[in-house]
Amino acid sequence: MAGEVFAYLLENNQKYVDLLTEWLRIPSISTLSEHAESVNEAAKWAENQLRDVGFPKVELIKGDGHPLVYGEWLAHENQPTVLIYGHYDVQPVDPLAEWVSDPFEPRIADGNIYARGAVDDKGQVMLVIAALDAWAKTQAELPVNVKVLLEGEEEAGGVFIDKFVHEHAHKLKADSALICDTRMIGVDQPSITCGLRGIQYTEIAVTGPKSDLHSGGYGGVAPNPIHALCLLIARLKGEDGVINIPGIYSSPVEVSAAEREFWQEQKESLISNLYEEMGVDRLYGENDILPHERLGVRPTLEVHGIRGGFTDEGAKTVIPAEAVAKVSLRLPAGMQPSEVFAIFEKAVHEKMPAGYRVEVRDLHGGSGTTIDPENRFFQTAVTAIESTYGKRPVYMREGGSIPIASLFDSILSIPVVLMGFGLPDDGVHGPNEKFSLSQFSKGMKTVADYLGRLQQT
Amino acid sequence: MAGEVFAYLLENNQKYVDLLTEWLRIPSISTLSEHAESVNEAAKWAENQLRDVGFPKVELIKGDGHPLVYGEWLAHENQPTVLIYGHYDVQPVDPLAEWVSDPFEPRIADGNIYARGAVDDKGQVMLVIAALDAWAKTQAELPVNVKVLLEGEEEAGGVFIDKFVHEHAHKLKADSALICDTRMIGVDQPSITCGLRGIQYTEIAVTGPKSDLHSGGYGGVAPNPIHALCLLIARLKGEDGVINIPGIYSSPVEVSAAEREFWQEQKESLISNLYEEMGVDRLYGENDILPHERLGVRPTLEVHGIRGGFTDEGAKTVIPAEAVAKVSLRLPAGMQPSEVFAIFEKAVHEKMPAGYRVEVRDLHGGSGTTIDPENRFFQTAVTAIESTYGKRPVYMREGGSIPIASLFDSILSIPVVLMGFGLPDDGVHGPNEKFSLSQFSKGMKTVADYLGRLQQT
Repeated sequence: MAGEVFAYLLENNQKYVDLLTEWLRIPSISTLSEHAESVNEAAKWAENQLRDVGFPKVELIKGDGHPLVYGEWLAHENQPTVLIYGHYDVQPVDPLAEWVSDPFEPRIADGNIYARGAVDDKGQVMLVIAALDAWAKTQAELPVNVKVLLEGEEEAGGVFIDKFVHEHAHKLKADSALICDTRMIGVDQPSITCGLRGIQYTEIAVTGPKSDLHSGGYGGVAPNPIHALCLLIARLKGEDGVINIPGIYSSPVEVSAAEREFWQEQKESLISNLYEEMGVDRLYGENDILPHERLGVRPTLEVHGIRGGFTDEGAKTVIPAEAVAKVSLRLPAGMQPSEVFAIFEKAVHEKMPAGYRVEVRDLHGGSGTTIDPENRFFQTAVTAIESTYGKRPVYMREGGSIPIASLFDSILSIPVVLMGFGLPDDGVHGPNEKFSLSQFSKGMKTVADYLGRLQQT
Repeated sequence: MAGEVFAYLLENNQKYVDLLTEWLRIPSISTLSEHAESVNEAAKWAENQLRDVGFPKVELIKGDGHPLVYGEWLAHENQPTVLIYGHYDVQPVDPLAEWVSDPFEPRIADGNIYARGAVDDKGQVMLVIAALDAWAKTQAELPVNVKVLLEGEEEAGGVFIDKFVHEHAHKLKADSALICDTRMIGVDQPSITCGLRGIQYTEIAVTGPKSDLHSGGYGGVAPNPIHALCLLIARLKGEDGVINIPGIYSSPVEVSAAEREFWQEQKESLISNLYEEMGVDRLYGENDILPHERLGVRPTLEVHGIRGGFTDEGAKTVIPAEAVAKVSLRLPAGMQPSEVFAIFEKAVHEKMPAGYRVEVRDLHGGSGTTIDPENRFFQTAVTAIESTYGKRPVYMREGGSIPIASLFDSILSIPVVLMGFGLPDDGVHGPNEKFSLSQFSKGMKTVADYLGRLQQT
C-alpha cells in the first residue's frame, strides 16, 4: 500500500508544487490589520484543499481573530487518531528592499521555492496535505484517523487557538499530534526536534518631553527617550550576553547526557555552519555555554526592533517625545511566560533611568515543550525519517517557539511529534525565505510513511 | 522718517501676514529629495518679493544644491552695508500625526500662525522683507546699503552657501550681518543673542549578520546590531549626562561674570519655564552645571533618531542585519566641528562592542559664534529692541547652531547681529510649529528701526 502512495507522490510532485505556489501568492500576514482579507482568503484556500483530499467534515471556525480551518476524517474504529497542526499565516515581509523577487510571487531557482511562507509554514502544511491526498487518492482512505487544525495567528501570538484548545479539548481528542513547522540540521543530516523554547514578546515604550523638542533649544536639559531606552537595553543585557533580570536563569534545564555529548561533539561543525549562515566570524552570547545549549534551551533576550525620532534621509535636530523597542525573551520549557513577563516588567521599571514614563506591553507569550523520546509516536517518526533519508535522525532542540506544542502537551495530554523539513539557511522570518523542493518531496514521503506505520494491524 | 515707516508697517500688517501665509504653503523641505521642486518654488517666491520691494539687483544663484536668493540695493556712498541672511527651507514634518492641522496650510489661532517654517525661518525672513518694503514704499529708498542672501539648505547642512561664501567673499562684502533666526527668552523679556553653539551631526550605522535572522533559530549566538548600538550609545553618554568622549570638554568656554550672574539669578524662572515647555518635572544633563550654561555653551550629545528591525504594529521575531542612529554634538564656539567629528569617530570605534562593523558618517557640521557686545551694530540692535519693547534686552546664548554666523565672522570678518523674535514655545522643528503674530509685528518694527538707526548723518 505504502508503495502505491509513494509512487503517487512522485508522479504528482509538480501538482503539489503548483498548489503550494497558489497558496503562497496569498499575502496572509496576520500581524498587519490591512492584510486581514488575505488571511481569510488563505484560510478558505486550505479549507478547499481539505475538501479536495476527501475529508468528509471540513469547517472554518470563526472567533475573535482569524479563523481556524478544521478537518476530520475518522473512518477507523481501531486505529489511532492523529491531530495535525499547521498555520496558514505568515510573517511581515520587511525589509522589502532586500527581497530578490516579490515575496508573494513565488520564484523557483536552484532547487528552492522562494516566497514568504515557503517553509514557515505553508510549504510544510502543503506537504502534509500532499501525503494525505496520496493516501486518499490511491487507497480511498487514510491509514489512521486524522484531525487537521490550521490556524491563522501563529505569527501573531495565537490567542484564538489558545482559547479554542482550552474550550474544545474534547473535539480535538487524539492519540498524538503531528506538527511540521521545524527544521533539520542540514540536508545530509536528518534530525527530529525533541524540545522547543517558550517565548515572551514585549514592547517597551518610553516617553519623555510632552512633544518633540529642538535639540538646539533644549539639548543639555531635556529628557531624551531614545537615550534612556538605550541605557535601559544596555542594562537588561550586557556585551557578555548575560541577561540581567533576577530570576531569569532560575528554571532548571533538562538536558540528557547523550544530548550534551552530541552538542560537544558537533560543536565545531555547528559553529562553522553558524558562521556561514550568519556571515560572521565569531559567535555572540554567553561564552562559557555550548552554542547548542544557548540556541536550544537557554533563556535569551533579543531586541527585534527599535524606533524613535527622525530616521529618514538627512538630518533633523529633534529630541523626540517617545521611543519604542520590541524585545522578546526565549525561555526554557519549564518557565511560564506570564511569570517571565512579570519579572521582566519589574526589571525594566527598576533599571529605567529616573524621570521617564515607561510602559511594558505584553504582546504575546507561549510555553516551551520537552518531548519524551521514548514514546511510540516519536519512535515511529524516527523510523520514517530514517527510511526516507537513509540515515538515522539526530535529536535536536529548536530555539524557536511553537506555543501550540506546549498546549497540546498540557491541555490534550498527548505526545507531540515535531517533524520538520526546513533547513538552517531557509531565511525564516527574513527576506528571501525559501523551502528546498527536495525537502518538500522528502517531507511528503516521510509524512505519508509515518501515517502508514501508525496503522495498527 | 522712521515714523512714516512704522505707520506703514502698522497699516500693512495684514498684507505681510498674507504674504507669509502664501510662502508657508510651499513645502520647501530641503532634506527630502522628493521636495526639491518645492524648495525651488520657495526660492522663486522670495526672489519675486525682493523685486516687489524694489531691489534693483535680484538673482537666483544656482550651484550643486538648492539655489541662493541674492538681492542688492546699494544706493548710498556714505552709508554702511548690511548683509541680511535668512533661509527659505524648512525641517521635515514628521511626526505628522501630531500636527493639529496641515503643516503646509497655515492656521491662525490664539494670536499665532501655525505652520512648518512659521518661525524657522520664513516668518523671520518675512518680517525683514516687510521692514525693507516699508522703507522702500515710504522713502523710495533704504536707509543703508543692503545685501540679502537667502539659502535653501540651512536645515540640510548648507554645503552650497559655505562654498559660496568662501569663493565670493568680495561680493558679500559688508560692514555687518543681520540674522533673524533666533528667539527671545519670553514675551515679557526681550533678549538678544550674543553666542551660538556649533554642531556636528553624524549618523552611526552598525551591521552584524549578513541578513535578517530569526531569533528562534539564532538567538543566543547571533550578533544583534540594535543591542550593540544601544550599548554604544549608553557608553557615549551616561545617565548623568556626561559625554564620555576624550577631549570633548577641552575647549575653554568664554562666559562673562555678568552673564554667569544673570544665569544664577534667572535659574529658578528658567527651570520653571523649561518644566512648562517640556512637560517634565525635572531637568536632565549635567547636574552640577547651571541650566543656562548647559543650554548655551556646554557640549551636548543627543540621539535624534534610531531605527532597526521590525517596528510596525505587532510582533516579529527578527534579529536585523543593521541598525542606525542619528547623533549630534552641540559645541562651544571655540571647537572645530571637523576635529570633533574625528574624536567622536574614534570614540565610537573604541566603545563599539567587538565584532560588529560600524560606520560613522559626517552629515554636516558648523562652528559656533561668540559676539562682542561692545560693537556698534550689536549696541544699535539693543537700542532698537529696547525702543520697541520698552525694556532693555538681556544677553542670551542660543543653544542652536547657525553655521553661517560663524562663517560671516571668520570669512567676511564682520560682526554678526543675531536679532531673533521667536519664543521658547514655538515648537521649532517639532509638530505645530508657530510664530506669534505680535512678535511678527514687533519684529518688523524693530528691524526697520535698526536699519534706520544705522544710517549715518
